Amino acid sequence: MAIADDAHYMGRALELARQGLGHVEPNPMVGCVIVQNGTIVGEGYHQQFGQPHAEVNAIANCGDASLEGSTFYVTLEPCCHHGKTPPCTDALLKARPARVVIAQQDPFPRVQGGGIKILRDAGMEVVVGVCGDEAKQLNAAYRKRQKTGKPWVIAKWAMTLDGKLATANGSSKWISSPEARAEVHRIRGYCDGIMVGSTTARLDDPLLTTRPPGSRTAARIVFDSQASLSESSQLIATLDQAPVIVAVSSTARPERLERLRHAGCDLIICEGTDHAARAESLLQQLGERGMTNLLVEGGSQLLGLLWDQRQIDEVVAFVATKIAGGSDAISPIGGHGLTNMEDALQLQSTTLRTFGDTICLQGFTGFSDEQSLR
Amino acid sequence: MAIADDAHYMGRALELARQGLGHVEPNPMVGCVIVQNGTIVGEGYHQQFGQPHAEVNAIANCGDASLEGSTFYVTLEPCCHHGKTPPCTDALLKARPARVVIAQQDPFPRVQGGGIKILRDAGMEVVVGVCGDEAKQLNAAYRKRQKTGKPWVIAKWAMTLDGKLATANGSSKWISSPEARAEVHRIRGYCDGIMVGSTTARLDDPLLTTRPPGSRTAARIVFDSQASLSESSQLIATLDQAPVIVAVSSTARPERLERLRHAGCDLIICEGTDHAARAESLLQQLGERGMTNLLVEGGSQLLGLLWDQRQIDEVVAFVATKIAGGSDAISPIGGHGLTNMEDALQLQSTTLRTFGDTICLQGFTGFSDEQSLR
Ligand SMILES: NC(=O)c1ccc[n+]([C@@H]2O[C@H](COP(=O)([O-])OP(=O)(O)OC[C@H]3O[C@@H](n4cnc5c(N)ncnc54)[C@H](OP(=O)(O)O)[C@@H]3O)[C@@H](O)[C@H]2O)c1
Ligand SMILES: NC(=O)c1ccc[n+]([C@@H]2O[C@H](COP(=O)([O-])OP(=O)(O)OC[C@H]3O[C@@H](n4cnc5c(N)ncnc54)[C@H](OP(=O)(O)O)[C@@H]3O)[C@@H](O)[C@H]2O)c1
Repeated sequence: MAIADDAHYMGRALELARQGLGHVEPNPMVGCVIVQNGTIVGEGYHQQFGQPHAEVNAIANCGDASLEGSTFYVTLEPCCHHGKTPPCTDALLKARPARVVIAQQDPFPRVQGGGIKILRDAGMEVVVGVCGDEAKQLNAAYRKRQKTGKPWVIAKWAMTLDGKLATANGSSKWISSPEARAEVHRIRGYCDGIMVGSTTARLDDPLLTTRPPGSRTAARIVFDSQASLSESSQLIATLDQAPVIVAVSSTARPERLERLRHAGCDLIICEGTDHAARAESLLQQLGERGMTNLLVEGGSQLLGLLWDQRQIDEVVAFVATKIAGGSDAISPIGGHGLTNMEDALQLQSTTLRTFGDTICLQGFTGFSDEQSLR
Repeated sequence: MAIADDAHYMGRALELARQGLGHVEPNPMVGCVIVQNGTIVGEGYHQQFGQPHAEVNAIANCGDASLEGSTFYVTLEPCCHHGKTPPCTDALLKARPARVVIAQQDPFPRVQGGGIKILRDAGMEVVVGVCGDEAKQLNAAYRKRQKTGKPWVIAKWAMTLDGKLATANGSSKWISSPEARAEVHRIRGYCDGIMVGSTTARLDDPLLTTRPPGSRTAARIVFDSQASLSESSQLIATLDQAPVIVAVSSTARPERLERLRHAGCDLIICEGTDHAARAESLLQQLGERGMTNLLVEGGSQLLGLLWDQRQIDEVVAFVATKIAGGSDAISPIGGHGLTNMEDALQLQSTTLRTFGDTICLQGFTGFSDEQSLR
């Protein structure tokens, strides 16, 4: 069988995998295609966290037919451990394909090549790396969390054509088009957390819910050392719709912590004596909670803090064809910044889309050596 | 003859007219198509300032054939006064068309309907307004100067995706792609003047020449009240390539004025006690010198000054897919700015193009009620 065919079937498996976005995390997205005599006889993907894996769904899709001598295309190395479901290698051993084509090895410590070894030991031909880059990009967020323990950080902002996030006194509604705002809600819909800075929480009093709802309900997170979030905020008023996490410093006044806890907020105590250390602590704790995708929606100081610490993986910037002007207006990314413009970071794999009057530029920083394709 | 045909032939006349960009100013761009028995028998456009007008070139293009009973399509009302060339109405009276279709009346005070009247009095059917909006947009710069005495002001900048024109200490090389910079040189090539602020002149020490040369050689202008331009600047070192105008305040130190004059600069004394008044005075004087298109290439303060005074007609913004960060970095348009983001100005007739890694968004402010199509 020609390599071109392998890439073709793996492309289909990746397409299937992608449908798991927002449903399977903190698991990876995985797709599987089974081919016999040059025909696809079964397809499947990991549809929902805790439910069967792609290989098992694809085998079930074949009914009772014998799969002996077939070729399996799987976007990720089949698992060989008992998790929420039995190991997929068991299912493959039972189906007895002649060939297993795998896009990428699983970086998950309990798998890492173990699945491949089991299949080879059973006499199957195993090919690894077909569409490997695409598969890695698809699961960049999963891979980052496996490697670093932290979620994939998506920085999102909307700015005017002259680079303003808000006017000098913090007015920012609305910069982008309704179509662009709908795209933001689509992204929110697959994220585990949506974070803003304490000033944005105070000035904008945002809802940060996903409207209409997406495939998961993100926790709303305020980076707020001093636990300053108002109990009369919209965030707290809508606690029935989605949780609110307030990320505080251990030095915040105990009575403020108590009031927020009493109001129904979840508190994360971020260790560290400066903002940078507390941001690192927060990201670690969000990772420990199983968060894969974290959307940071501003403001300028919070994005600057994360940028300076190379904590941002993906950028989604909306640029409106509007002009605000003003030397004191707020720019999207604050923080320390650069001395030399030649050190500015060129984003990778950038895409350009238009949403009504607003354009959207998206790209990857490469800070955690992963890219994500969606 | 159907209206659709009129629009078709006028579209061709507009296409011809556009070829005069950068060659004919301070005249308008004009195109002419002559149709006889449903066929184009002659075409012409105003090719160069001081040379024959579109109608005369189109008639010449027909050779010795009689044009009696034909239809003329002209993008601008034929002139009826002796300027550098005899009135075009004379040429039409001689050619004796049955019909003259005109896209727009000439706003030039000495014409304004006078040409139309002469043709009607001679018994020709005259139709005015076919493709009128396109014709107005094409000659927006000409029309603005006729109406206000000031040149059309194009604000151009290159910024990072996080809205930075330069880092905090003024480093800005290079934000945009080589392809984007080539587009800037294309625009420079049809402008009469290219202006920067005194700080940009000092920090960047730019050349502001057009490379490769375009259809005209723009004067390089520094907005510089205190006549601070260095005699060892690249601008002055390249005076053999293009003139340098220093726009100074009447309060600048006489010895500085003398040194710049002696170095070969052209000085424009801008009256007024503040920057806004001096900018208005400068634009008036540039208009009086016959300048039609003025490209302002920054920096932030100069663009902010012009923006606050509603002196900018067209915006050409290059957005790189790079991130710089920094709360003290410089943003494209300084000045006073807005209080409420909802008052941000939505640009009109925006276009989006890509130049390598850099995108270009272009649009019109409508401040002088004109738009320009190019
Ligand atoms: N157009 C848009 O897309 C958009 C999106 C969001 C916000 N906005 C606008 O942005 C404005 C708010 O932005 P902002 O930059 O003022 O505030 P912000 O980023 O929302 O809040 C300030 C954040 O920075 C942290 N911080 C404070 N001091 C710091 C320091 N020295 N070093 C590092 N981090 C520090 C704060 O943490 P602690 O509380 O722990 O001190 C807080 O989380 C509002 O006007 C809002 O409307 C616009
Ligand atoms: N990326 C790009 O496309 C680009 C383009 C150009 C420049 N830049 C960068 O921009 C930086 C320079 O920008 P800049 O904003 O600092 O300077 P600038 O605009 O180049 O120069 C300051 C201008 O503002 C005028 N001005 C001074 N005080 C003013 C006031 N109170 N009100 C109104 N106008 C006033 C000055 O006029 P007087 O001299 O008469 O006082 C001067 O013409 C440089 O770092 C340069 O590299 C980047």
